[in-house]
Amino acid sequence: MDAMTRERHETYARSIVVDGLIISKWSEDVFREMCESGLSAANCTCSVWENFEDTVRNLVAWNEWFRTFPHYIVRAESTADIRAAKAAGKTAIVLGMQNTSAFEDRIGYVEVLKKLGVGIAQLTYNTQNWVGSGCYESRDSGLSDFGREVVLEMNRVGMLCDLSHVGPATSRDAIDISTRPVAYSHCLPSGLKAHPRNKSDEELRYIVDRGGFVGVTMFPPFLAKGIDATIDDYVAAMDYVINLVGDEAVGIGTDFTQGYGQDFFDWITHDKGFGRRLTRFGEIVNPAGIRTIADFPNIAEAMDRAGWSDRKIENVLGRNWIDLLDRVWAG
Amino acid sequence: MDAMTRERHETYARSIVVDGLIISKWSEDVFREMCESGLSAANCTCSVWENFEDTVRNLVAWNEWFRTFPHYIVRAESTADIRAAKAAGKTAIVLGMQNTSAFEDRIGYVEVLKKLGVGIAQLTYNTQNWVGSGCYESRDSGLSDFGREVVLEMNRVGMLCDLSHVGPATSRDAIDISTRPVAYSHCLPSGLKAHPRNKSDEELRYIVDRGGFVGVTMFPPFLAKGIDATIDDYVAAMDYVINLVGDEAVGIGTDFTQGYGQDFFDWITHDKGFGRRLTRFGEIVNPAGIRTIADFPNIAEAMDRAGWSDRKIENVLGRNWIDLLDRVWAG
Repeated sequence: MDAMTRERHETYARSIVVDGLIISKWSEDVFREMCESGLSAANCTCSVWENFEDTVRNLVAWNEWFRTFPHYIVRAESTADIRAAKAAGKTAIVLGMQNTSAFEDRIGYVEVLKKLGVGIAQLTYNTQNWVGSGCYESRDSGLSDFGREVVLEMNRVGMLCDLSHVGPATSRDAIDISTRPVAYSHCLPSGLKAHPRNKSDEELRYIVDRGGFVGVTMFPPFLAKGIDATIDDYVAAMDYVINLVGDEAVGIGTDFTQGYGQDFFDWITHDKGFGRRLTRFGEIVNPAGIRTIADFPNIAEAMDRAGWSDRKIENVLGRNWIDLLDRVWAG
Repeated sequence: MDAMTRERHETYARSIVVDGLIISKWSEDVFREMCESGLSAANCTCSVWENFEDTVRNLVAWNEWFRTFPHYIVRAESTADIRAAKAAGKTAIVLGMQNTSAFEDRIGYVEVLKKLGVGIAQLTYNTQNWVGSGCYESRDSGLSDFGREVVLEMNRVGMLCDLSHVGPATSRDAIDISTRPVAYSHCLPSGLKAHPRNKSDEELRYIVDRGGFVGVTMFPPFLAKGIDATIDDYVAAMDYVINLVGDEAVGIGTDFTQGYGQDFFDWITHDKGFGRRLTRFGEIVNPAGIRTIADFPNIAEAMDRAGWSDRKIENVLGRNWIDLLDRVWAG
């Protein structure tokens, strides 16, 4: 190992490493991989199309996993929990919803789900719901009145608003109305590939100019090279965003779907899981070099290859995520 | 004010005062009365016949009340919260369920409801459910297998098992199997009046001999003198229990139903709220001297009249309740 390689590993080893979006099929193997790959924290999806009751049942499953696998995972209800997990060599799980379907039409369920551990919620998932519109809708008239209540209630209880799958007008409304920073937890720039899920330069600047955050995903259908992309293309996409908004409001949000098969992709690409088809992803193969969660440390190597400074690497690996969560979750 | 009266007030004023059961119609007036009467904490019923979802909706209402009336009430999720409320001159609310109907058939809901703030749950309410049998059932074969799981799960998450309305065999099973102390939060001795809801000398000794606790109620249908009883009869009932089990495992559990009318009593005296009639209470008038929550300080005066020592008064007013909750809620 030469000096530069050692240096690079030391940066990864001492950094807090945060993945802003994982939706993998939860299992002991996945938890072990997150822990052993040095992930300090991950936003793990606990609800997509589910209503309140089914989301609570998913949270019950999480409660059991925290009891069963305490050597790999712990709950993250504060950034102190994440720092403690880093110190203990474990992964702190931020429970996140990719939809507000679990709030149903009851504003009181926002606080209830926060108390049950949900720290992040995406306002819509691909299509329109009671809150607003999704990125695959033909028209987006913005946040509904109920949606405005939801954003303000999420602000009050300290739950991060995620806008990754949200439509452009609804996103803009949420950015404007929110009293706390909001995030695209996992997105790619449409400057690299036009796609309903990707965000324009203007959108990326708009959210960061207002204190918000951009997590960069590597989900193949949204990458210019698709399944032929490599980890270096992924880091290049991060650099595209950083060139727009600087390196203090950008992080990682892989969107690992590890362990899932076609049934899962059919479920997430139909409205509410069973309605009209919204898109077809085709084959999902993550970029060479970062095919599985176990490959996570390779991201730091790729950042080195791209000539990143230690400070920039640490910012994007996790420090920026922690700063964001501090601002959103603090009382 | 003579020296003894002043002394008595000083004892009440410095004591932590706990009411182990209030099921009143919640309102600003009730919260103000609890606060102004010097209650440091109260076990406030948030579920009787309700299933999971309806109980969560009740908890949503409580969340709103905590926000709206912070000058009167605060949440009690630990005995430290109760001590802090006492210091601040507020009432700490222990959210309690009088049934396990909210757990439905899902053991995971025990932890979920604990996370949402439920610190006490009665295993059954008057009739048989999935956990065990109630005090108005003709037969009681004890805890079901699911009921055993529920008791152990309540032990694990730190939720007090209340047995006040539970049948005798189910109570005995719960006392035997529980690894943490359990309680009759609000009951009277059948040695003073035979009634399905009252507990025999043997039952009172059985629970306390195994580390448990007895809260004494003043609900008129269970008192020997009914609606003609006075606050001195209430203290005499406490003394009856104390003569059996000592003064370190006994407390107050009034069962105030303040603000409720006939509809409420019809609801609680029919199986599941709408089924067969279980009992008729007749007119409900609390004992003279303690008709309303505002009269709470009169209890200390009545204890004085009965010749109680300061130490005994403090024990029964609240210290014993705190010791119990410390043992049940501690990690």
